[in-house]
Amino acid sequence: MKLGMHTLTQKRGLLFGGDYNPEQWPEEVWAQDAALMREAGVNLVTVGVFSWARLEPEPGKHDFGWLDRLLDLMAGHDIAVDLATPTASPPPWLGHRWPETLPVDESGTTLWYGARNQFCPSSSVYWERSLDIVTALADRYAGHPALAMWHVGNEYGQFCHCDESAAAFRRWLRERHGDLETLNEAWGTTFWSQGYGDWEEILPPRTAPYIINPGQRLDWRRFCNDQLLAHFRAQRDVLRARTPEVPVTTNFMGFFKPVDAWAWAAEEDVVANDCYPEPGDPLTPARTALTHDLMRGLAEGRPWLLMEQATTAVNWRPHNLPKPPGQFRLESLQALARGADGLCYFQWRASRFGAERFHAAMVPHAGPETRLHAAVRAHGQELRGLSRVAGTEVPARVAMVFGWDSWWALEDRGRPSDRLNADEQLLNYYVPFFERGVAVDVVPPGADLDGYALVVVPNLFLVSDEQAAWLDAYARGGGVLVVGPFSGIVDPRSHVRTGRFPAPLREVLGVSGEEWLPVGGPVRCRWSGGEDGFAAGTWTELLAAEGAEVVAEFADGDLAGHPAITRHRHGDGLAWYVGTMPEQAALGALAERVLADAGVAGELPDLPPGVEAVRRGEVLFVLNHGTRDVRVELPGRADDLLTGAPAEGAITLAPREVAALITT
Amino acid sequence: MKLGMHTLTQKRGLLFGGDYNPEQWPEEVWAQDAALMREAGVNLVTVGVFSWARLEPEPGKHDFGWLDRLLDLMAGHDIAVDLATPTASPPPWLGHRWPETLPVDESGTTLWYGARNQFCPSSSVYWERSLDIVTALADRYAGHPALAMWHVGNEYGQFCHCDESAAAFRRWLRERHGDLETLNEAWGTTFWSQGYGDWEEILPPRTAPYIINPGQRLDWRRFCNDQLLAHFRAQRDVLRARTPEVPVTTNFMGFFKPVDAWAWAAEEDVVANDCYPEPGDPLTPARTALTHDLMRGLAEGRPWLLMEQATTAVNWRPHNLPKPPGQFRLESLQALARGADGLCYFQWRASRFGAERFHAAMVPHAGPETRLHAAVRAHGQELRGLSRVAGTEVPARVAMVFGWDSWWALEDRGRPSDRLNADEQLLNYYVPFFERGVAVDVVPPGADLDGYALVVVPNLFLVSDEQAAWLDAYARGGGVLVVGPFSGIVDPRSHVRTGRFPAPLREVLGVSGEEWLPVGGPVRCRWSGGEDGFAAGTWTELLAAEGAEVVAEFADGDLAGHPAITRHRHGDGLAWYVGTMPEQAALGALAERVLADAGVAGELPDLPPGVEAVRRGEVLFVLNHGTRDVRVELPGRADDLLTGAPAEGAITLAPREVAALITT
Amino acid sequence: MKLGMHTLTQKRGLLFGGDYNPEQWPEEVWAQDAALMREAGVNLVTVGVFSWARLEPEPGKHDFGWLDRLLDLMAGHDIAVDLATPTASPPPWLGHRWPETLPVDESGTTLWYGARNQFCPSSSVYWERSLDIVTALADRYAGHPALAMWHVGNEYGQFCHCDESAAAFRRWLRERHGDLETLNEAWGTTFWSQGYGDWEEILPPRTAPYIINPGQRLDWRRFCNDQLLAHFRAQRDVLRARTPEVPVTTNFMGFFKPVDAWAWAAEEDVVANDCYPEPGDPLTPARTALTHDLMRGLAEGRPWLLMEQATTAVNWRPHNLPKPPGQFRLESLQALARGADGLCYFQWRASRFGAERFHAAMVPHAGPETRLHAAVRAHGQELRGLSRVAGTEVPARVAMVFGWDSWWALEDRGRPSDRLNADEQLLNYYVPFFERGVAVDVVPPGADLDGYALVVVPNLFLVSDEQAAWLDAYARGGGVLVVGPFSGIVDPRSHVRTGRFPAPLREVLGVSGEEWLPVGGPVRCRWSGGEDGFAAGTWTELLAAEGAEVVAEFADGDLAGHPAITRHRHGDGLAWYVGTMPEQAALGALAERVLADAGVAGELPDLPPGVEAVRRGEVLFVLNHGTRDVRVELPGRADDLLTGAPAEGAITLAPREVAALITT
Repeated sequence: MKLGMHTLTQKRGLLFGGDYNPEQWPEEVWAQDAALMREAGVNLVTVGVFSWARLEPEPGKHDFGWLDRLLDLMAGHDIAVDLATPTASPPPWLGHRWPETLPVDESGTTLWYGARNQFCPSSSVYWERSLDIVTALADRYAGHPALAMWHVGNEYGQFCHCDESAAAFRRWLRERHGDLETLNEAWGTTFWSQGYGDWEEILPPRTAPYIINPGQRLDWRRFCNDQLLAHFRAQRDVLRARTPEVPVTTNFMGFFKPVDAWAWAAEEDVVANDCYPEPGDPLTPARTALTHDLMRGLAEGRPWLLMEQATTAVNWRPHNLPKPPGQFRLESLQALARGADGLCYFQWRASRFGAERFHAAMVPHAGPETRLHAAVRAHGQELRGLSRVAGTEVPARVAMVFGWDSWWALEDRGRPSDRLNADEQLLNYYVPFFERGVAVDVVPPGADLDGYALVVVPNLFLVSDEQAAWLDAYARGGGVLVVGPFSGIVDPRSHVRTGRFPAPLREVLGVSGEEWLPVGGPVRCRWSGGEDGFAAGTWTELLAAEGAEVVAEFADGDLAGHPAITRHRHGDGLAWYVGTMPEQAALGALAERVLADAGVAGELPDLPPGVEAVRRGEVLFVLNHGTRDVRVELPGRADDLLTGAPAEGAITLAPREVAALITT
Repeated sequence: MKLGMHTLTQKRGLLFGGDYNPEQWPEEVWAQDAALMREAGVNLVTVGVFSWARLEPEPGKHDFGWLDRLLDLMAGHDIAVDLATPTASPPPWLGHRWPETLPVDESGTTLWYGARNQFCPSSSVYWERSLDIVTALADRYAGHPALAMWHVGNEYGQFCHCDESAAAFRRWLRERHGDLETLNEAWGTTFWSQGYGDWEEILPPRTAPYIINPGQRLDWRRFCNDQLLAHFRAQRDVLRARTPEVPVTTNFMGFFKPVDAWAWAAEEDVVANDCYPEPGDPLTPARTALTHDLMRGLAEGRPWLLMEQATTAVNWRPHNLPKPPGQFRLESLQALARGADGLCYFQWRASRFGAERFHAAMVPHAGPETRLHAAVRAHGQELRGLSRVAGTEVPARVAMVFGWDSWWALEDRGRPSDRLNADEQLLNYYVPFFERGVAVDVVPPGADLDGYALVVVPNLFLVSDEQAAWLDAYARGGGVLVVGPFSGIVDPRSHVRTGRFPAPLREVLGVSGEEWLPVGGPVRCRWSGGEDGFAAGTWTELLAAEGAEVVAEFADGDLAGHPAITRHRHGDGLAWYVGTMPEQAALGALAERVLADAGVAGELPDLPPGVEAVRRGEVLFVLNHGTRDVRVELPGRADDLLTGAPAEGAITLAPREVAALITT
Repeated sequence: MKLGMHTLTQKRGLLFGGDYNPEQWPEEVWAQDAALMREAGVNLVTVGVFSWARLEPEPGKHDFGWLDRLLDLMAGHDIAVDLATPTASPPPWLGHRWPETLPVDESGTTLWYGARNQFCPSSSVYWERSLDIVTALADRYAGHPALAMWHVGNEYGQFCHCDESAAAFRRWLRERHGDLETLNEAWGTTFWSQGYGDWEEILPPRTAPYIINPGQRLDWRRFCNDQLLAHFRAQRDVLRARTPEVPVTTNFMGFFKPVDAWAWAAEEDVVANDCYPEPGDPLTPARTALTHDLMRGLAEGRPWLLMEQATTAVNWRPHNLPKPPGQFRLESLQALARGADGLCYFQWRASRFGAERFHAAMVPHAGPETRLHAAVRAHGQELRGLSRVAGTEVPARVAMVFGWDSWWALEDRGRPSDRLNADEQLLNYYVPFFERGVAVDVVPPGADLDGYALVVVPNLFLVSDEQAAWLDAYARGGGVLVVGPFSGIVDPRSHVRTGRFPAPLREVLGVSGEEWLPVGGPVRCRWSGGEDGFAAGTWTELLAAEGAEVVAEFADGDLAGHPAITRHRHGDGLAWYVGTMPEQAALGALAERVLADAGVAGELPDLPPGVEAVRRGEVLFVLNHGTRDVRVELPGRADDLLTGAPAEGAITLAPREVAALITT
């Protein structure tokens, strides 16, 4: 069987722990830490993420002794180690001796050491030195009983615009386009006199007098992603060669634009995520759920790992709101409910120094005899009672499509409106499903749609011919497809597809348009065949039905009477199109209609506001994100794994309380 | 007769067309384009603005074949070509081989290729290579039947702070100031220890710890303008030597700060403008009218060319509102009414790629069978019925003075308030005249004022002695002069004129002041001899009448009882002074008083809000910019050239509708 | 006796004058200026602040003739000269010939000449050239009868991140930390792999990918301050060696973050300040009073000099509100009341050119026959009647603690909230005392607290062990101590002190906490033992009383019932702790309680809003900052030194009016 989370959970059950940075503490503290970890139920720690300077204080000179002792200590306490390669933050000596390893921003400004992440992803010296320390690490700890997983780098997402990066970009472009003529055509360099006559002329997008070529920018995004991924793969290959039985991971940051998580997930054994929602944002429960569902999608439905979260406030916002008591537990259980088999935190013990000394931890500055650490301990202990959840799946009959290539192409300068964004559209469409307790998988363009009764494409600006055919086939084959505005606009070179839009989806949708019409304020719409209406905003389109039924039309201004939302019978299925941005309540009404079309219902009927319901394996999780007690109706009898108490017909949940129900 | 718009319109009538970028399309599309152009009444296209890389794919190697074929095609369809020199956007090879041609901003950051406009206006290599391609172009197309006009560069306005620019700046300064002592005196370098002891020490204003010397900044503005103008002239001279019968133009951008349009207009045959008003701004009709009046002023009252406008939304704003149906026609006719003899668009066919692929065009991505293209075609056709307008003038008895030198001097750091701006003051004073259907000419300081009954100087911060004498002579000779606040403050070196202000205008105005007093909120004012008052804001002054009648006084605070607006009999004329920024309604009341003094009335009495009335030649244009039907009273009978319908006593105009009346 | 303000005031009485820049004017104006100065009572002018280029037009070539004549003229009119060293603004030749003297910002951008202050504080060439001109100046004017004081540089506060600065930083760090191991420990370089293996690797904090090491940033702040102070000291030593009888000063800018005024004041003879409050800010009277109290603290209670203020508007804000008539006099007298023995302005005569030509002056552009200059003259004259104030002290029994080291450490990126700031906290706590007429001294951490009945520490984030002991001893010895939130958090290396906070003050305060809890909106609090409550905001803490009495508790949310404000009997004294940011009215109530504890009362009971009362020597100053007449009750009879009028029982003050009362 392929390596994965099960490699870790099979013998340990659910994972609980965090980043551990022992190099910040004298060794006498390590022993206290190990004891406290045991008490708190910690069974996994991530070690060494930022230890390069400690492991290799000068080039080629290694100091592993402290790490040997640490790993032995962890092994002795039966705590597994997720051992990091320290490549995210090179030691000062790298930038000092080899300044060409330092990244350069688009304006030519060098980014120095003094913080972290200061490396050029295309620097040959950086590659050489980083693979060297990785090799040394792998050679040394292969077979160590504490070693349970490899953690490669940290939060990949660096850029560099230096000349060495330019040369690497050119190599990548040669690979992609073959010859200059093809590149010139792909980038549309006849526009603004940008024709390249020699490969050497080509540069990364650097500070320029005006809007930079979008084809160049899109290829640059792809190149940057590929360059980092190549670096990940190079490390992984070193590690796999030495420890084929140890899974390899790296930590994502959710919907993080620089890195195409679909491409990365395919190269790693375990999908892991860092998740730091804003406590003051009312959309946090839904946004976090969506991120978790993305992780589950990246893991192809299998369990994933919540690598980093905070027990309370972070320190990198201007004003860092804490999490109220009960909140981090609620969020941990939310991740569990949505497929996480490990719940880890940054970090175990709060730092006394450095840029993150005011970031929350599992053991705060005030020590273990605190409200916060008591909650950590309690949570670690209760997770033992939920071990039967490990390895189970979250069944979903709805898929939402999201792709990085399209995101990159859409969110560049020079488009009709910067208020229509791919990730926000996804969230807007996701919220109604979340509120109704309907499980959603996030899938990439081109995914296997077998088993999904409903596929929603909130926005897919860039669509290849193959992707268009894929959506067509899905609907024709009996699926219910929903497509949001400004989809299908450009091809993979980011060239606009001419003709009425969305050109490649016109047939499946039975509707087409000729003008995108951003609006300055709200526009009234009316559901066809009724009096009821709703407001839309930001975006409208001039559409004409070509076989589709008009479900809602614009009721205001120059578009009055033109279609706003359509529904088209296509083959055995249905294809909906939404040519505007309806207010959230109307997206809710739309969700109900398409769910009805698809024959899909939520886990529990009539969920009260703020309550999340999601099934994982045999357990139905019900979470109260609100600030008041709520009563939730149940279909029958249930037992709560958390309280051990049975429930008949209904449960009442206090604020931030969770039930993990076995329904019978 | 001098070359001008008539050179083009004599045989073609009104011009209609746009930028055409055939290099973005396969040649089979060209033929479709030519046919569509004919159908739409297009008789002028601008070609080659961004074709340098295509025309000269490597230094010295030319490829003109495609352009030969295109010009032949246009000639065959009787479509005139405004052939551009491609100097606005050098090919990548220029910046790659000669990095010193790339512009450098004030912080030292290089602006690279990848967008457009990446040239240093002082680079000798850039000059050499750009004049070389211009010469080749002129040699090749001199005498071509399609060639109707030369379009030099595009939207000039570049800056560069590099060392070669510094050397050119020093040469320019030597020319201007003669010796270092004069320069030191002009810049006031005894302030802050800035005395220069050697020409080589002098630099462009680059990033500095604090506010940079305003004399240096003003001379830098002048130099940058002159340097670009020299480049324009050098191209023009190459073209004129080869095609003396072909007019030469370049495209302005209205009130665009970097370029002193008065100086440029004197060097070109045809005045042309790019005009992209914000559709969502209620001031757009007046602001656009003002810009058109500036163009007419630049053309010394003769017809001008609207070189670029958009059929609907642009793409370079963050959120690009479209124009509702009828809007671009309304705006086209507004330009016609205010002296344009040509109405062109950017661009003919919407691009599929490049930074402006979402910019509106005459043929949208959806193709010619669209609402938008139908409107383009209809507009092109109706223009044929208006050909009698071509060549006629817009009579005006009111002039407003606006100068770049003063604008540059005013709008620098370190003044009493950055809320008193030259272009906004001009607009504030213009709006009441626009609303009353009173035609206004925009003229430069020092213009011939013969024939003007009223001259308004909304702000003229920098006034030379000659300009002061010119205003004095105008009023003394019987004119009505209106001067706005903070005028006459500095001399051409931007030195404050000491003594009570406005020192050089004190005698003509019969009033003087001793303190500028920006205010934080509104201040009440009272019309003298009455109860009525108005609010002023932002700016007040401590004034004392010295012979002038006090027309309004401050009613609030420490200035209560002091003059706010004065009126002074000076020789045979009258001189008004406004020492504050009255609310817009009060500027309306003021306009009525000064119009009465001058004996000037609007085209139509009691125009409804949102309606514009302007006479051009024998045609009275009435335009409804509002969103409701309006009834407009007429003095008698009239025939509408657009509808062919007669009107008696009144007309009713739908929203965005226009009448072109021959009154009888 | 040590040199000080008395050196100047002994024979001249109160000082009145301003910056005088004669190099901007022809010499015939100098004579007029001297006469006008005499009329206005000017007896001190600051000369030569920006004269380097004039004094040394090329390296090593001096031109002192003009300054000889100017000093002779001043001596002849009995006007003392505060002669500046011109080192704040080097001539263009310095940057041109030695570009390494130009400062470089954190991104590597050079800051050029063209403004002022363009020097690298660590440049050896700059040091050499600046000490050279200072030496020449001192040699020449030692013994000149006009010379009354030396003014070193101007508004010190420059930074530079260049390589020469880096080398100097490393030397400073070696001095401070001794060896690399200590430095690595101090900076906590085990965090994020920042361990330094070689001194040469260490750099100033330059632009980096993320948050820079706070230890490095704090040491950088200290280094920058020390480097500038060393430059000041080097100049001072040159001057003292030649003119031991002439006091040396430099001008502070109040609570100006770059410069630790406590360290500087100890090195100069006279404490001087530049003070430019925002006229539109209602907090200006209190904020200005606080700044004056800081100056008095810097001068250890002795008189200080208001070196620069404006007669009306400045020019460097975007919108520069003027001061209404009477305002600058009010502000001058406020400074006098709070210990200033000299009241000077920037500048004597308004410039015609240069970046500050729109900055107010004592003689405006409109000349001496103006409202403004008349007020200047009147104020100069009335100061003669107040000469008995010179040399007297302001008695205060309350001290507020403020330190730069702690300010620097607190206000860096990455803390719980950027809304809790040291200078704002100080002002918040100061306002209630100001409003009640209670005199406050501002003192540094570690100051002698003898004689203070109440010591307030609004925020002291960084506390050394010695400082903690000092506060403990103060309370134990019978004082009343008040400590604000987030104090005592880090040690001098900016390491968090672990354990319950504020760790080093836990015993004295009898309370401790475990979580900092920034809040998004207001939180209700309740005074213990009553119904009344108040709102707090921004910041709360989870506290537990450990012997302290709970004076107020949180009434809202998760903290309900936990302490907000506590009071602890400690030895013979009392120690208050405030674990939140109460609204201003609650800080007033708190002030009354702690004043009662300390047995301190304001100068006058029940001061009306907007009225300031402060005693200096035998004079009680009462100032009306409001815009209405106020009646102020007096304890008995008094004579007003300003009006000469007696008062019995009460006085009435018009807006901006002041009384200087001798109470009897």
